[in-house]
Amino acid sequence: MKTVYTDKHHLRNARTELAGGELVRPFECPERAEIIRARVEERQLGEIVSPGERGLSPVLAVHDEGYVRFLETAWDEWQAEGFKGEAMVACWPARRMTDRRPDHIEGKLGYYAMAAETAISPGTFEAARWSANVALAAADIVLGGERAAFALTRPPGHHAARDMFGGYCFLNNAAIAAQHMRLSGAGKVAILDVDYHHGNGTQDIFYERADVLFASLHADPRVAFPHFSGYADETGMGDGEGATLNRPLPDGTDWTHFSAALADVLDCICKTGTEALVVSLGVDTFERDPISTLKLTSENFLRLGEQIASAGLPTLFVMEGGYAVAEIGINAVNTLEGFEQAA
Amino acid sequence: MKTVYTDKHHLRNARTELAGGELVRPFECPERAEIIRARVEERQLGEIVSPGERGLSPVLAVHDEGYVRFLETAWDEWQAEGFKGEAMVACWPARRMTDRRPDHIEGKLGYYAMAAETAISPGTFEAARWSANVALAAADIVLGGERAAFALTRPPGHHAARDMFGGYCFLNNAAIAAQHMRLSGAGKVAILDVDYHHGNGTQDIFYERADVLFASLHADPRVAFPHFSGYADETGMGDGEGATLNRPLPDGTDWTHFSAALADVLDCICKTGTEALVVSLGVDTFERDPISTLKLTSENFLRLGEQIASAGLPTLFVMEGGYAVAEIGINAVNTLEGFEQAA
Repeated sequence: MKTVYTDKHHLRNARTELAGGELVRPFECPERAEIIRARVEERQLGEIVSPGERGLSPVLAVHDEGYVRFLETAWDEWQAEGFKGEAMVACWPARRMTDRRPDHIEGKLGYYAMAAETAISPGTFEAARWSANVALAAADIVLGGERAAFALTRPPGHHAARDMFGGYCFLNNAAIAAQHMRLSGAGKVAILDVDYHHGNGTQDIFYERADVLFASLHADPRVAFPHFSGYADETGMGDGEGATLNRPLPDGTDWTHFSAALADVLDCICKTGTEALVVSLGVDTFERDPISTLKLTSENFLRLGEQIASAGLPTLFVMEGGYAVAEIGINAVNTLEGFEQAA
Repeated sequence: MKTVYTDKHHLRNARTELAGGELVRPFECPERAEIIRARVEERQLGEIVSPGERGLSPVLAVHDEGYVRFLETAWDEWQAEGFKGEAMVACWPARRMTDRRPDHIEGKLGYYAMAAETAISPGTFEAARWSANVALAAADIVLGGERAAFALTRPPGHHAARDMFGGYCFLNNAAIAAQHMRLSGAGKVAILDVDYHHGNGTQDIFYERADVLFASLHADPRVAFPHFSGYADETGMGDGEGATLNRPLPDGTDWTHFSAALADVLDCICKTGTEALVVSLGVDTFERDPISTLKLTSENFLRLGEQIASAGLPTLFVMEGGYAVAEIGINAVNTLEGFEQAA
């Protein structure tokens, strides 16, 4: 399996994350991608290729233009105000408030944010753009006829909604790739999100569409971020009614129960005539992840890959979360090797 | 004029505020109330009296019960999770997300917050309760027949909505007092908010009611906190249509223009048969306030008090913002002395 990677992810290297009422070094850090890349090489998974520049057109196919322009200029606008820290959200259009975009950068940050932990830092937009380019290049490998490809995307994307950032995400790489696959001829695409956290952004982007199915296994939002998305009764709207599948899982869920829920959603995916699969691959379901509560072992990720392969679909893996940095390479590449061995 | 004060405000002494992407000592600090109290004494404004315990019933007359219970237990729930910092918001029910209350304290914080800068710290709820008790005791002085009274409330209240905290506010002292005045026989009450920031919480509480008019002069929300409330076209809903008056003011507004806008809203207040006036007295319109951009001088606050007195109404002053700590006593008490000299 080919991996698409670029060192431009280093442009995203924020100093601060708001966690537990403190400013800490972000859990989503550059080492994550480097450790995965090293493991890809060590296990000789396949060639590592560089992405090309694709411009904003495929990004704007799923994101709001005002939002993308905001991401582009946010850091400069923030700096111009003389703030000393990184760009962090102060307030937002809360319940019963007006939902119009203010002029000041503090207001714009709130207008375009879905969470407060994630700071915008210098280089963030460029890194996010290149992360989308990585997903697009990997999608083209699958569109070119290969059974699978791995987009080593960083920053991740699945929390980024049509017009909101947060949860370490700015541009929704999986959604950008899925939309590109649709426009390149795939009749129906499914996005399977196995990250610990609900992929609220991906759900949001395709919520009213029937041509891109979104299926997610994740920690119950009653107790886990993003808290306000991912409930079982969120099933899509309008044309998309029934094309969103959420399987919230209780704290401590192990492979036996995770695998059963996965079998169920893969069954739904296969029954709906899906022609290509995009996997939002988070490995923060790992038992020793520092910010998560599921209980998958490193060995379970081999099984995860095998089970995904059983769907028999052209498959694009897009990297999302995973914060047990020392084991992130093993867990991510185990999934890919499990897939290859079964494919 | 009598002042109601209690040293229980010291129970609110948070260590951290999120400002400009950094955690700083809160601008809303205990010294604020102490400096105002010292100035009240120095100028011999009148007797300083202590409030009595009023219980939660007057609080629950304007706030959601689930919200009040949340405030009561939030710090303990946060501590039980082992977080090291103060309780700060991570995510919220953003645009197009579900608006149901999660079980985990991180989710509850987002459900009940309208801004991210304000941490919940030990003692916050008790301090907020006593701040409401201060407002209620001062309201009773006015209800008892005195022309005016000063509630030296801290923490402030006007950003606290029916079910949301933020902007240094937890319980809406002015709204609690106004509702108490209504229930004690005042036919129609008006709340005049002269704080630099829009009193989004007070507006929210009375937005659909005709019996409590809300009128606010404040910095334009396009460029100032709370950014998503306080636009001129927010005029009330249902029974309350027309009973909300917002006068957003541009950066750099001085007394001449502030006074003209004030004359306009006082005129509206007097025309609607108001029987009692509650003034949300923020003095962060001061020219040297560290987080504001209006240009009132200390001398202008004497004129502000005079102009408010010209309405000829029984008047309850409730302290809100003001962060130029050294001058906060002069500016707040100037307003009260200006009122007394003209009353």
